[in-house]
This record gives sequence, structure tokens and C-alpha cells, in this order.
Amino acid sequence: MIEKVRGFRDSFPEDMVPRQRMFDIMRQTANKFCFSPIDIPSLEYLELYKIKSGDELLTQTFSFKDKGGRELTLIPEATPSVVRMLTARKDIRKPVRWFCLPKLWRYEEPQSGRSREHTQFNADIFGDESLYADAEIISLACATLDKLGLCGTYKVRVNNRFLMEKILERAGIKQISKGYSLIDHFKKISKEEFEKELMDLSDDKEMLLALTELLGTEIKLSELDKKFPETFKSGNEEIIFRLMNTAKLVSKQTDAELVYDASVVRGLGYYTGIVFEGFDIKGEFRSIFGGGRYDNLCQLLSGTSMEAVGFGMGDAVLELLLRRNNNWDAEVKNNSVVFCALSKEAIDMCFSLVKTVREYGYSTTVDTSMASISNQLKKAGANGMGFAAILGPKELEDKKITIRNMKTGKQAVGSFQDLIQMMLELSEN
Amino acid sequence: MIEKVRGFRDSFPEDMVPRQRMFDIMRQTANKFCFSPIDIPSLEYLELYKIKSGDELLTQTFSFKDKGGRELTLIPEATPSVVRMLTARKDIRKPVRWFCLPKLWRYEEPQSGRSREHTQFNADIFGDESLYADAEIISLACATLDKLGLCGTYKVRVNNRFLMEKILERAGIKQISKGYSLIDHFKKISKEEFEKELMDLSDDKEMLLALTELLGTEIKLSELDKKFPETFKSGNEEIIFRLMNTAKLVSKQTDAELVYDASVVRGLGYYTGIVFEGFDIKGEFRSIFGGGRYDNLCQLLSGTSMEAVGFGMGDAVLELLLRRNNNWDAEVKNNSVVFCALSKEAIDMCFSLVKTVREYGYSTTVDTSMASISNQLKKAGANGMGFAAILGPKELEDKKITIRNMKTGKQAVGSFQDLIQMMLELSEN
Repeated sequence: MIEKVRGFRDSFPEDMVPRQRMFDIMRQTANKFCFSPIDIPSLEYLELYKIKSGDELLTQTFSFKDKGGRELTLIPEATPSVVRMLTARKDIRKPVRWFCLPKLWRYEEPQSGRSREHTQFNADIFGDESLYADAEIISLACATLDKLGLCGTYKVRVNNRFLMEKILERAGIKQISKGYSLIDHFKKISKEEFEKELMDLSDDKEMLLALTELLGTEIKLSELDKKFPETFKSGNEEIIFRLMNTAKLVSKQTDAELVYDASVVRGLGYYTGIVFEGFDIKGEFRSIFGGGRYDNLCQLLSGTSMEAVGFGMGDAVLELLLRRNNNWDAEVKNNSVVFCALSKEAIDMCFSLVKTVREYGYSTTVDTSMASISNQLKKAGANGMGFAAILGPKELEDKKITIRNMKTGKQAVGSFQDLIQMMLELSEN
Repeated sequence: MIEKVRGFRDSFPEDMVPRQRMFDIMRQTANKFCFSPIDIPSLEYLELYKIKSGDELLTQTFSFKDKGGRELTLIPEATPSVVRMLTARKDIRKPVRWFCLPKLWRYEEPQSGRSREHTQFNADIFGDESLYADAEIISLACATLDKLGLCGTYKVRVNNRFLMEKILERAGIKQISKGYSLIDHFKKISKEEFEKELMDLSDDKEMLLALTELLGTEIKLSELDKKFPETFKSGNEEIIFRLMNTAKLVSKQTDAELVYDASVVRGLGYYTGIVFEGFDIKGEFRSIFGGGRYDNLCQLLSGTSMEAVGFGMGDAVLELLLRRNNNWDAEVKNNSVVFCALSKEAIDMCFSLVKTVREYGYSTTVDTSMASISNQLKKAGANGMGFAAILGPKELEDKKITIRNMKTGKQAVGSFQDLIQMMLELSEN
């Protein structure tokens, strides 16, 4: 017996029905925000990720050589492919709003909320450097979560990489990228450990202390101008003002709380301006979505300069959140009907009726087991069918059909032509 | 500049919009037939395909070794994974109707209607050996094509592997599998070449001649009992009767023509009963869908015996058909509206309105370019927007908004609260 590969998912209907509903909501919400769908290849040359993705990512890819000896990889993230696609087309009018729902792969240890294969909702705005684009990207992420019924269960932590750069410089830290990777671990290591490593990066003890305090504080974005530490404020007013205005625009689209959190820098190397992460308020799970502005990546990958801001939202953490919220149930199939028949002749008659029933929007199937009617009805109930359409010997002789509402148990008898009408009437009661 | 991998697709919105519509129709039709969605992993152990898939397939996989040295492959077909999933679960009530829409990969030369990565609509019925299951599977394939607007452009060629086995035996062919692979090439090689190779398999010239004639003849399934050659008929009446009854049931679901075609045997090794292929009537493209009964595969893969019938329908040939049918256009975005503003204040006001507009089901975005209104309107037209909501200085002062139907050019002015109502009224004219 051959098992599945470790860390990969078999998705049975009980999971795929709610997951598909989740994907549909992502698509519908993106559509309402005027984002157009694209699709990216599952395989790319590994070089595409060598340019600017983090090193950690490169060690976690499913890679192999093609027959010509070039290294291919199952895509570990969507952004490089999307940028490659966009910059290959000079004819597309800017700004561009694109989304995709690709599968992504990472060769890492499977754990809760992280499997080796998952689907990511990915959205980007290209060719718009304004805060409006920042606001719309965050609003789309929030509107999607809100539509999924998660409003009130998450908040958004925001930072700005330009601001952080200046803060690190002011704290006397010259190795900015080392500073970022340390800050990226701020919430994962102990305070002592963090401070010890921080002291290695600068001699200005006082400013490092101020930095540590800032990293440990969440500030409401609406109060950022008042609460932001004076030590780091002067010269950064413009960025702070932009962050506040972005948050104001987002608050018109969602009730989700936006907070400033200096410890959010996002691991990936290519962010330039705003960075953000959606977090479970209860703190049980990994981040729900993450993204930011990456105005330099297009230039690096393709030689074409292009402003860009985007996010990625994985389906695995979302599933955990929706399950906790009791929102991961299979749909109630009210508009489904099973035909129950007792003879070949009756089965044939049922098959003459299914086309019409399907055209009226019902899901339907014929029970061809020729088991007893009571047995067939039991099965219909267990399968969660909305109606049973019974064609027993008596019905067949009279050219009538019995419709049973499986939930209420109420029945009606009528001619074949009245089938849809009978189901509608039995639904109302 | 890093290019995409050869044979892979970049799907831009002009392709992804119609492709997504196609996928939605597949899902909706499967749902109407009471098929439940599942999803399968993109990677499996290569062993899974060694058991029963054709050798040709094994040479065309994207395979590589994992860190433990086991051979993994990007899945080249869906059926083995689906069977692995089903037989792993003993608790699922039979019959089972499942569908999935996975991406599949084949490492072969890219050509029209065949890329190295494509998406396949895959549907199966497990645990039902009856002709009703055969009929429902073919009906689902046909109903999907019909819903895509392809009714009248395709027909279904049907055969039965048991029947073919008996025919080959009667023609004196002992090496049945050699016979199948030769017949699989019947339409691809010349008549002379075919006959020459056929003569190597049997000495019974007369029967081989009858076989060649049968292979070159299409017989309407409704006339199969009258037109089937007497030479091969006796002893096969039951199979012929089942084929005819299957076709009769299918004809209640679709107007597509079903024909008997002895040359349809399907390359893959695992079919047992009925086999079928959907064909473009004009003969321009590869087969549209293909499938059949494979009652032995579950036993071979998992040790659990289980009847099964299913089909696969690739998206690449379908796209060619839909393009030829002028049915591959991007949607007309009637329910879309772009806000046009001329000042920061007006832009802010627009962002206060978008949430409501989106909640009413419209797609909307704010043009934040601050270009002239005429310029913004030109862009809106080029982007195919249904409406423009204009907030110029005069409107801002009066707290009014101008709505323009981009198709008719008709405009209306009203308060912010009347925005939706105005669009509805402008739609009707």
C-alpha cells in the first residue's frame, strides 16, 4: 500500500467544501476590489528566488534539475512569478490590480498551520506609490477576513521599513540587515537573549534601551503622532503621517484594529515601505496574512522599475481560525434531492426527470440500489439530502411522484410536472 | 532577466477570467450531479504510478528524489491519488461521487492543446458497478460541455474493453495488450502500416479483415444491435445491450451524439468495462475528455476491491474549443464602478463610499491619479468599467455625486445615499 507523501494533504469533501467556500469568498472579495485573476506556473527556475528572497527560503524548496541541468523549483512564494509576468508585458495600463490563488510548496518540517503544500491568496497593486494603494491592499485582506466571519478575531500590526531603518541608524546600528533579522526574532527569543545580541550591534546603550522599549509596545495607529517616542520622531513625521492616513482609510473598510508594532519587519529581504501582518487576537496561531511595499523588486528582477505593494494569505492558518470559530462546516444541501425507485422501470423514469431538476438549480441523483424505500430514505437522511422524490409501484402506475422534505418529514404527491413546484411549497413550510 | 520554464503557462487576466468561468461551470455542474469536491496532493511517490499506469506516462513525469532517496513525482494523472484517498477511508458510504480540479504535469514536448502543466476536471463514481454509474459519468462530462455552450460541436465515442477483448480473441489475437496498443494507434498511422502490424498478431486473415473494417466504422449506439457485425456479435449480446441502455440514459441528459467506435480503447492500462472519449466533431483537436470503468485498480493499489468509473477533462483542449466558439472573452463588467476625484478631499470622500458600493455587489476602485476628469473617464472606458462616479469640486461643494453609465453615456446627479439607486436606474435605460 502506497501512502501519501509526508506533510501533504488529502482533502476530503468535509474539508474541501468549506475550503472551496473560503476560496470563493477570496475571489469574490478581490473582484469587488477590482483585482483581476491571474495564474502563475507551479515550476520556476530556482534563480528567480536567488535574487532577493531570504536564504532560509532557498534551503526549503522542492528543487531538482531539468534534463538540461538547470535547477527548477516548485514555487515557494508567488511574488517573483507575478513580477516576472507583469514586467514581461509592456502593454498593460497601470495601476494594475492582480490576484492569484496558487499552491505553494516548502520543504520544511510539517507543523500546525503549516504543511508542505498550501494554497495562498496573493494580491498586488503595481504602479501606484501612493498610500491609497497601501490602504486598498490592507483593506482587501481585512474585507476578506471580515467576509469569512472573522471580524473581531484579528488585528493588523503595521510598520514601515524606511522608518525602522532610521530608527536603527539613530540607535547606532550600522548593520541594518543584521538588525532586521534580530528584530524578526524579537517575539521568539527571551528578553535577555535579545538584549545581549542587540548590544553587539551598537555602543549607544541608551538608544538601544529606547529601541527595546519601542519594540515591546503596540501603539494604536490613530494615536501614533501622540504616542510615538520623541527619541525617534523628529525627521520621521512624514512617514508617521502616512501610516496614520493609511490606517484612517483602512478603517473605512473594516472594523479591524490597526496597531503600530516596531517588531514587525517581515523576514523577506525585498520590502521597502509599509509592512504589515494580520494576527489572531488570541495569539494561538501564526500570522494570518503578511505583506508590504516592495518598490525595488521589479527593478532587481527585470530591470523595469515599478512600485508594488501586496500581501499573501495562506489557507492553513485560516482553516485553524475558521475551525475555532465553528465556521468550517459542510454546506446544508437544502436544494438537493435524491430519487428513490424500486424497479428498473421506475429508475428509467427518474433519469427522465433529473435533467429538468438540475436545470432548476437542484443537485440530484438517482438511488439505483433497489433497496427498500425505507432503506433508501435512511441513506438520503444520512447523506444530508434536502428532499426525496419517491417513485414506488403505486406512483408509477398513477404517473405521480411523492416528494418528501427530509427535514420536516412533510410529503406531497403530484404529477411529474409539479415536481419543482412541490419542492418549493414544501420548502416554505 | 529570468524567463518562465518552457511549456508552462503565464495566465493573464484575459485568459484567467474565462478559465475561471470554465472551472466554475465544472464545479457547478458536478455539484448538480451530487459529486462532492476533494483535493489531491501535487506530489506523490512515483511507485503509485508504477503499478498500473502506462509506461509512456512514467517516462514523462517531473520526478526527483527526496532527502531520504525516495522518488517523488509531480502527479501526471489524478486517478491513483483519488483511489489512494478513497481506499484509505473505510467509513465512507458507497456509492461515492467525487470530483477534483487538480493541476497535472507531464514532461513532454509542448504542443497545441498540450502544455507541461494543465488543470484537469476529474470525476469518479466508486462502489457502483451498474450501467447507471456509467451513464451518469458520461452525462456529467456532456452536461459540463453543454453548459459551456459546446453542445453540437462534439460527440462521444464509446467502446467496452471486455467486448474488445473477445473481439481480439475471436480474431485469433493472443497478445491482447499488444493488440490494444496497436489499435490505440489505428487513427494515427496509415492503413497499410496498421494492417501489416496486425497480420503479425494473428494468422486468421479473414477475421483480421473483419476487425479492420469494424475499427474504421462508427455505429450509432441506438442502432448497435442492428449494425454490429454478426461475426463478433454472438456471446456479446449482453455487453452490447448494456452499451445501448447506457447511451439511452445519457441521451436523456444531453443532445450529444454517442457512437460506437471499436478503435477507442484508451491507452492507460487499467480500464475494464466501458471506455469513452469526447471528440471535436470538426476533428481539429485532441480528445476533449476520456475515461472509463476501472474496477480492478482499487484492488491493485490498495488491496481493497471497489468498482469505479470516471473521466478526466483537460482545460487546454477545452480552451481551444471555446476560443473557436468565440466563447473565451473576458466578462463584461456591468456591475463595476470607478470613482473619479480631483482632490485629496474628494478622494477621501470616495473611500468613505466604496464599502457600501462593494456590499451591494459592485466591483469598485478609486482613481487616485488626480488626472483630469476627461482623462479619468477615458481610462474607465478603456478598462471596461460599467459606471463612473464623479466627485468634482462642484459635486463636493453640493455634497452630490454624478453617475455616468459608461456604455450609454447617460448621467444622473444625486446625493451620496442615492448612488446605488442611480446606478440601478441608469442600468435600466
